[in-house]
Amino acid sequence: MEYVNYIKDPEAIEKKSFEIIRSRIDARRFSDGELAVVQRVIHATADFDYEEILEFSPDAVEKGLAALKAGCGIVTDTRMAQAGINRRALEALGCRILCYVDDPEAVAIARERGITRSMAAMELASKDPKNLIFAIGNAPTALFKLAELIQEGKVRPSLVVGVPVGFVGAAESKETLFRLRVPSIITRGRKGGTTVAVSIVNALLYALVKEGPCGG
Amino acid sequence: MEYVNYIKDPEAIEKKSFEIIRSRIDARRFSDGELAVVQRVIHATADFDYEEILEFSPDAVEKGLAALKAGCGIVTDTRMAQAGINRRALEALGCRILCYVDDPEAVAIARERGITRSMAAMELASKDPKNLIFAIGNAPTALFKLAELIQEGKVRPSLVVGVPVGFVGAAESKETLFRLRVPSIITRGRKGGTTVAVSIVNALLYALVKEGPCGG
Repeated sequence: MEYVNYIKDPEAIEKKSFEIIRSRIDARRFSDGELAVVQRVIHATADFDYEEILEFSPDAVEKGLAALKAGCGIVTDTRMAQAGINRRALEALGCRILCYVDDPEAVAIARERGITRSMAAMELASKDPKNLIFAIGNAPTALFKLAELIQEGKVRPSLVVGVPVGFVGAAESKETLFRLRVPSIITRGRKGGTTVAVSIVNALLYALVKEGPCGG
Repeated sequence: MEYVNYIKDPEAIEKKSFEIIRSRIDARRFSDGELAVVQRVIHATADFDYEEILEFSPDAVEKGLAALKAGCGIVTDTRMAQAGINRRALEALGCRILCYVDDPEAVAIARERGITRSMAAMELASKDPKNLIFAIGNAPTALFKLAELIQEGKVRPSLVVGVPVGFVGAAESKETLFRLRVPSIITRGRKGGTTVAVSIVNALLYALVKEGPCGG
């Protein structure tokens, strides 16, 4: 049977995959750090649209790496995104990954004020000055709320990964963020998602901590 | 500022999103259950390719729903996928969601036999007869191993969601599974991923348990 011969070495699989991706994209358009992000997103989605729709503010990768090196808190909008970030890399850098969406305080705020839990979670997250990276792959309302908090001067992120997916509000939420000129990585249009948010953060982590793939 | 007017009602966002998706796909090609899956995958990826590349064995949805109703165990290949399945729906049905990839026994098996942890995790998972649904979005080696275990008669899943993403082995792993004629949902080609696996399982859960979206 042919499947007894499958490749069992995840590092070899990943290396070969990145070679294939690299051969199909125009690397000259990106800095080294940006290229690592673009490649990892395409690796996680097999969707070459991301070469076109990923957008970086000029200082995004640099500011994100500096915050990671300083051991910042990284806030996600979903438990699923939180679970996808590489644990060993986080530990090596002394970073924490936080998601406030199930926090009883967020649940109470959402109920009292008639806002989504994702929005309440952003309010809570912005109160801890160690939280310098925000990665939002699912909830446009979380990204709109974060943009509001930035505009009001209540939070000053080192990097916002703003890539919610969707047909209603997602594209607008990303454009709103990008216009604020905070360091940010977004996707233009409808595409994005938790996998995209996670692979962007992991690409930055792997630039600092050599780490094998976590699957195969 | 325009973003104070954003929609804050996740249910309204989801309803509108599904209307947009529904208007763009050819619903007649699918059964009601399949259509719910296709729509939720497109909702989670904003990628209409999934209308073409999602492939259902004739009994996949029916067998999957029956297993969920019976309170089966659902095995994922990653912690991230595990975290993405709707908890309240699982609890309502008495289902459990399991991931063996960090299990000390899986780690030991992988080290001793020189296989991936994803493969060792499938061996462990197949020992519990309550584990009737397998959802694999990341690791082709996990899906190849599962196909091997099925072929050897060591496990008889009610449903395999086999959608690993990738450039090396992913497509082959899915074709190998599909040829075994077990109830399965796959994606043809390179695309897929954890988000896709999660949204397929959640679509089946939501067919049985009315559940609002978990974000917005």
